Amino acid sequence: MADKKMWGGRFAQGTAASMEAFSESVSFDRLLYAEDIRGSQAHARMLARQGFLTDDEARAICDGLDKVKSEIESGAFVWKTEMEDVHMNVESRLTEIIGPLGGKLHTARSRNDQVALDFRLHVAARLAAWQEYLASVVTVFVDRAEEHKNTMLPGCTHFQPAQPVTLGQHLLAYCQMFKRDHERVTDALKRVRVMPLGAAALAGTTHPVDPRAVADDLGLPATFANSMDAVSDRDFVLEAVFAGSLVMAHLSRMCEELIIWANPNFGYVKLPDQYATGSSIMPQKKNPDACEIMRGKTGRVVGSLMGLLVLIKGLPMTYNRDMQEDKEPFFDADRTVTASLGIMADMLRLMEFVPEKMAATVKRGFLNATELADYLAAKGVPFREAHHITGAAVAYAEGKGVGLEDLDLDELKRFSGEIGEDVYAVLDYSAAIRRRITPGGTGPESVAAQIKALRGWLGSL
Amino acid sequence: MADKKMWGGRFAQGTAASMEAFSESVSFDRLLYAEDIRGSQAHARMLARQGFLTDDEARAICDGLDKVKSEIESGAFVWKTEMEDVHMNVESRLTEIIGPLGGKLHTARSRNDQVALDFRLHVAARLAAWQEYLASVVTVFVDRAEEHKNTMLPGCTHFQPAQPVTLGQHLLAYCQMFKRDHERVTDALKRVRVMPLGAAALAGTTHPVDPRAVADDLGLPATFANSMDAVSDRDFVLEAVFAGSLVMAHLSRMCEELIIWANPNFGYVKLPDQYATGSSIMPQKKNPDACEIMRGKTGRVVGSLMGLLVLIKGLPMTYNRDMQEDKEPFFDADRTVTASLGIMADMLRLMEFVPEKMAATVKRGFLNATELADYLAAKGVPFREAHHITGAAVAYAEGKGVGLEDLDLDELKRFSGEIGEDVYAVLDYSAAIRRRITPGGTGPESVAAQIKALRGWLGSL
Amino acid sequence: MADKKMWGGRFAQGTAASMEAFSESVSFDRLLYAEDIRGSQAHARMLARQGFLTDDEARAICDGLDKVKSEIESGAFVWKTEMEDVHMNVESRLTEIIGPLGGKLHTARSRNDQVALDFRLHVAARLAAWQEYLASVVTVFVDRAEEHKNTMLPGCTHFQPAQPVTLGQHLLAYCQMFKRDHERVTDALKRVRVMPLGAAALAGTTHPVDPRAVADDLGLPATFANSMDAVSDRDFVLEAVFAGSLVMAHLSRMCEELIIWANPNFGYVKLPDQYATGSSIMPQKKNPDACEIMRGKTGRVVGSLMGLLVLIKGLPMTYNRDMQEDKEPFFDADRTVTASLGIMADMLRLMEFVPEKMAATVKRGFLNATELADYLAAKGVPFREAHHITGAAVAYAEGKGVGLEDLDLDELKRFSGEIGEDVYAVLDYSAAIRRRITPGGTGPESVAAQIKALRGWLGSL
Amino acid sequence: MADKKMWGGRFAQGTAASMEAFSESVSFDRLLYAEDIRGSQAHARMLARQGFLTDDEARAICDGLDKVKSEIESGAFVWKTEMEDVHMNVESRLTEIIGPLGGKLHTARSRNDQVALDFRLHVAARLAAWQEYLASVVTVFVDRAEEHKNTMLPGCTHFQPAQPVTLGQHLLAYCQMFKRDHERVTDALKRVRVMPLGAAALAGTTHPVDPRAVADDLGLPATFANSMDAVSDRDFVLEAVFAGSLVMAHLSRMCEELIIWANPNFGYVKLPDQYATGSSIMPQKKNPDACEIMRGKTGRVVGSLMGLLVLIKGLPMTYNRDMQEDKEPFFDADRTVTASLGIMADMLRLMEFVPEKMAATVKRGFLNATELADYLAAKGVPFREAHHITGAAVAYAEGKGVGLEDLDLDELKRFSGEIGEDVYAVLDYSAAIRRRITPGGTGPESVAAQIKALRGWLGSL
Repeated sequence: MADKKMWGGRFAQGTAASMEAFSESVSFDRLLYAEDIRGSQAHARMLARQGFLTDDEARAICDGLDKVKSEIESGAFVWKTEMEDVHMNVESRLTEIIGPLGGKLHTARSRNDQVALDFRLHVAARLAAWQEYLASVVTVFVDRAEEHKNTMLPGCTHFQPAQPVTLGQHLLAYCQMFKRDHERVTDALKRVRVMPLGAAALAGTTHPVDPRAVADDLGLPATFANSMDAVSDRDFVLEAVFAGSLVMAHLSRMCEELIIWANPNFGYVKLPDQYATGSSIMPQKKNPDACEIMRGKTGRVVGSLMGLLVLIKGLPMTYNRDMQEDKEPFFDADRTVTASLGIMADMLRLMEFVPEKMAATVKRGFLNATELADYLAAKGVPFREAHHITGAAVAYAEGKGVGLEDLDLDELKRFSGEIGEDVYAVLDYSAAIRRRITPGGTGPESVAAQIKALRGWLGSL
Repeated sequence: MADKKMWGGRFAQGTAASMEAFSESVSFDRLLYAEDIRGSQAHARMLARQGFLTDDEARAICDGLDKVKSEIESGAFVWKTEMEDVHMNVESRLTEIIGPLGGKLHTARSRNDQVALDFRLHVAARLAAWQEYLASVVTVFVDRAEEHKNTMLPGCTHFQPAQPVTLGQHLLAYCQMFKRDHERVTDALKRVRVMPLGAAALAGTTHPVDPRAVADDLGLPATFANSMDAVSDRDFVLEAVFAGSLVMAHLSRMCEELIIWANPNFGYVKLPDQYATGSSIMPQKKNPDACEIMRGKTGRVVGSLMGLLVLIKGLPMTYNRDMQEDKEPFFDADRTVTASLGIMADMLRLMEFVPEKMAATVKRGFLNATELADYLAAKGVPFREAHHITGAAVAYAEGKGVGLEDLDLDELKRFSGEIGEDVYAVLDYSAAIRRRITPGGTGPESVAAQIKALRGWLGSL
Repeated sequence: MADKKMWGGRFAQGTAASMEAFSESVSFDRLLYAEDIRGSQAHARMLARQGFLTDDEARAICDGLDKVKSEIESGAFVWKTEMEDVHMNVESRLTEIIGPLGGKLHTARSRNDQVALDFRLHVAARLAAWQEYLASVVTVFVDRAEEHKNTMLPGCTHFQPAQPVTLGQHLLAYCQMFKRDHERVTDALKRVRVMPLGAAALAGTTHPVDPRAVADDLGLPATFANSMDAVSDRDFVLEAVFAGSLVMAHLSRMCEELIIWANPNFGYVKLPDQYATGSSIMPQKKNPDACEIMRGKTGRVVGSLMGLLVLIKGLPMTYNRDMQEDKEPFFDADRTVTASLGIMADMLRLMEFVPEKMAATVKRGFLNATELADYLAAKGVPFREAHHITGAAVAYAEGKGVGLEDLDLDELKRFSGEIGEDVYAVLDYSAAIRRRITPGGTGPESVAAQIKALRGWLGSL
Repeated sequence: MADKKMWGGRFAQGTAASMEAFSESVSFDRLLYAEDIRGSQAHARMLARQGFLTDDEARAICDGLDKVKSEIESGAFVWKTEMEDVHMNVESRLTEIIGPLGGKLHTARSRNDQVALDFRLHVAARLAAWQEYLASVVTVFVDRAEEHKNTMLPGCTHFQPAQPVTLGQHLLAYCQMFKRDHERVTDALKRVRVMPLGAAALAGTTHPVDPRAVADDLGLPATFANSMDAVSDRDFVLEAVFAGSLVMAHLSRMCEELIIWANPNFGYVKLPDQYATGSSIMPQKKNPDACEIMRGKTGRVVGSLMGLLVLIKGLPMTYNRDMQEDKEPFFDADRTVTASLGIMADMLRLMEFVPEKMAATVKRGFLNATELADYLAAKGVPFREAHHITGAAVAYAEGKGVGLEDLDLDELKRFSGEIGEDVYAVLDYSAAIRRRITPGGTGPESVAAQIKALRGWLGSL
């Protein structure tokens, strides 16, 4: 087998079969075929402009690569493990199609800068896709938030009901997370969309190449600044997978809530049939499988990030074969993130919320206690005393098994003479919500303003 | 699609296509087919013994399952994604073959305890395979250590040459790591080889099953102690992947050394052609690809461990669908660990060591300085003064560009009158090694004793 | 500053102040003082037995070390950062107390094997403490399980009520996790309790030391097998922190449940005042802070494990200064694990369970549906049809807002003529539990057997 | 102890001592005192502008807080664990100083938004400090690169010498990494520098607060968009620690190289005394402790990132006490990142490079082989044949123990008639470097351009 390799002629022994299997990457990096071809075509056009190829040669190469691409997409292409990777597979087929001219593509290029370009183009394309998915999720969440901008929900701290909020406000909190994810990806893209061709193996090339022109041809805003960094930098992959880890963390939080909300003790949601499984004998039972799997898959993306951090620790300059292990973690993270976002959008669109269950908890939780204390404070009762009075009133109401708002005025007055008829307006849960109208608050005006701002942002993308 | 599912009849909407893809596991858990069938056969035999099946029924089920297995192994079996997992695929085919009797297999069993059994059987089998691989690596290392029990190597601390050791001793240090890995796997197996059938969905079963008999049938030493734990415990997977992480960490250390030793500034090894790549124009150049990839793959297994730890954090009782994500990390870790160990054994068997390069570094590094200081101390020179004298002598020799042993007696005496002719025996590097004969030391007798002990251990497995 | 160091005399420049701060370890490794002293005393006794010290010298050293220990424990000892670590601090003070004889302790010993011994003794002692904490937690859980062996609880899969279990069975599931943790620690201890003294810097020593005797003196069952491994092995720390990660993962699961159970929609528990915080105005509100913090601290221990795995990846032989970073992750994990286990035991002992809330959920969830299906199947109704009938009956009862057991016989017979008066015994929830008496099941006899086995195990420790 | 807490009056039992220790944060969050005070002063000024406080009251509060700050900084302040955190400690002392007026600071504020503000201010300040450290490191590296822009270094791929580069180019590769780190921090700061005050406990406040004005007062560009997100978002901490993980990964790569370069087989550097340790008897020996510790500390920061990812996984809205565990990982990462960057800058400034050792490796490695092949190709020899000829020539020279450039023309002509006298200019190593002048290449003009660009960037900060 030794003589099949460019460098193999002088090796007495061929590569071991176990080593072929251990080191090949074509089984996964074939995913990069489109970027490999696109990059090579841009390289060929640059070579022609710089006088290394005639225009006819460049055209023949580009046409040949188009043909290879067609073959791959039609399924006619035969991938060969002994060719190791996508680059050699494509180049070897190109040379079969157009003859020795194919070899000229190697002018002023090395596999080291080629693989960096292909992977950067791929990551850039997938991150752009992530942004579309994120925008879709935000769109759905905003729509549902608008629909439920007056739906009362027990807002929790420490997972204990604390103050009434709206379901709208709750959903919009997630919109902020996904918006940050979107912005983080935008930032990461600045460091992904860098054109490394011209770095060659590691030292740059003696040929007068034009990296800027190749970058323009490929629509990349930046070119590499240092050839050694260009072939050994994998920061962009880590940054992408970190962004994906946060996306999954955010989704895991929503999933956790949906799983609990679907438990009959909460009953805040009825899961859409399409994203649940059931029981043949308990028709009311629905298992939140989509949420559970998504929560579980969080670990998967975090694990990929950790694997990459282990990978780059302590690697000397420049390209080391360890770096081949950079692709599968990203591919897996990409599949996980996009599938999860897609399902979250679809599932939330179909989710049936049960406002009366949410309202029942609000009432049971004395979530208007803060309002009573504030009411007393506004009447001049010192803060600490207001709290004490409220606590006593709540304890009394709890003993009777009713809400504060169910006590009559005489009963309330026993706790403080300052309490008057106007207290009932204050104790009204919806009013408590309506009063929180400062920017970002749970009041309907604040929620409306948030929705408007998010719609504006979505429209600007 | 709703009506295809057992529980689907009452769902108004079928499962979404995206959800089918998101939640199916048959694309990876089909790997468990042999364990699934083996477990079902043991279950059927138990059901017969307990009177739930006639002997003929049990035999028909077992024969049917054998047929399913043959179909899978011949490639004739058609895996169906809509059947979700390996269990439903196998059961559904069984029922096609033997009719409604197939459904009786479900007596006193749930998918929750079934999947736990299948996975435990699989992990147990793979861990046993890891142990064989570990024993192979140790065998090779011991052989090479014996061959090089007198080969001098500069022993490093802080990656600075410190004292002469032997290559044999160095290789045997790795044997201790792999031996610990082997023992750790033995310990983990105690917690893997537990029979969970009879836990049913989560609460146990009303049928008088006999878990002990099923365990005996399957060769498992223990049965589950608590039904809820039985269906929700995944500790055994984490423990296996942790053991794998340490195996990879150990391999990464050896790989790091081989990569550096293959650099021409060291030149301690010539890599076997079968596990290296070359350069078409620099025939002396060999790239340590196998070592680099293996070092890189360390991150992969560590990442899987981290993913699993994220997965189980905060999961309430009992089975949650998140747990479906337990399999791929193990499968991937298993592939990585076994491929890496296999290649390390083969590569080390073929590795060409270059003793003269190692010896040259020993001499250049004044690695007999400690010997001179000890010599002086033995003659009664106070410890600190002995060190001071030695330092001065080394500085002098370094200035002349020679070793301490190249100085003549007159030169040496200038540093201390205590130095006599017998110093040359002490300065001899091999003698320094030969004197370190306490248990575990680098002296040839100690190395021989270590080799004997390791061979004894290998023989006892 | 250069001349303060043993090796500093030949350095033209002293250590930078920033470097002193960066590299010192005494701020944290002083925690090892007792083990350092204990190890040195055992070493001194061995040196005397081997003839390197007179008995009087050994006694003077041991007494001097006892004095150092007293000074440390009384607070009189002055720790010096410029002495870098605990070893130098102790040795330097010893020499102040007993004079130059203190220097003889260095015979046949290096800081490399000394730090390994100290840390191994410390980890061994702490792991033994973990085991006591684990046993305490199991004791409390077993006691509470016994108290609640008949307390009905809705057993969940997918966090959806599925079948009735008992709170006792639920708590015993956790006992199995903690018992496994205990056993895992026992296994880890085999690899911790290894005596490394005699490995010296890396190559062993020319002095005829007696590692076995030192091990016996220190109560360690094993001695090192290879000197290079002895000074570079940190597997034992990783194994300990992994064991701690699983302990925390198990605690995080219980905490998650308690946090949800404390939410008023569940109300299954009332948290003990001692482990909760409250609200000044909502007296019924209790925040599950202890559970939340414990769940949060899971990440801390997992993070330490991750850090250690990054640390050892790719480290060449033998001792590298990177390894100094092995201690703080363990110390932090130790503090976290022991504090968490201690609080879990105390909190559970005081936890107030609310059986009536649990029972209410059981009833609301039609958790006897499985029983009805089994009843029909036992009467000969085919499995699938039995399920269909049950589903229809549940849907009917749900529509009426009652349980299956609340339907009268005429109503039930509409679904199947096979249903008779005996169905009500089957539909009784407690009966459903009582029937699950196979080993490990939720039935009271099974629970009693589990309790007995656990008590036996606790007694055997 | 129960009555010491605001909410404690209604708890029958006081907090357990173990719980006090488990849940207190003042032992570490006191680090935030300056931000806590600064945030409270801005809040007081806003309250005055909105009419909740008189100007005199606001002034009294601000002055009182200044006094608290002075006490803390002078060491006079007594921190109390039973006050739990920095916020309560500061507020309680303020009230001692200025009386009940101190309590008014709580108007329209909760500890939930207060802690978010304090931590955001702190992280923002520290990230700005990171950027200064990064700029210092880049400054040093650029200076040393300029000094060594003509220093030949064997450029490696697969850690095998491949082509000659310059030490300048090598150091500039690291500048690109640190520049990316700087930019990543700039991006992260956009999401850190958000003002959360006004979110109150979780729902916003009924008081007409002015978050924008508080943000302006504090110099923060953005205010929170959603109150629930404001109190539960910890993304900014994770993003900071991820940025720190990449900084450490980059440092670990440089450290790895320096450790290897300091090994006598390389000898490319002589470590500065200030950042190394030595041996008392081998004066030529220097241990690269600073590099080793720094490489080891990489794990520490990665571990903190992992811990934080575990922490936030699956947390429901909004504030959960788990989040208290967000601070120590950042504090530790901050200490590690800044100490490491500071030491890298100082160490590199003092590092002695040994160009002759680097040059010797270049020659020994036939690093001009690529040049010969290119020379032949330029003369029209087909690519593959040129490679074959070169390989044969290298093998011949290697056999003679000389470099290609040491062969005379007759010898060279035996391999190809195309070779002429002009080949020697091509074989000159420096010439090989000088020809690589395309942007980002290793040629001196490219290096000069990189230096100019980096200096321009540094000047623009």
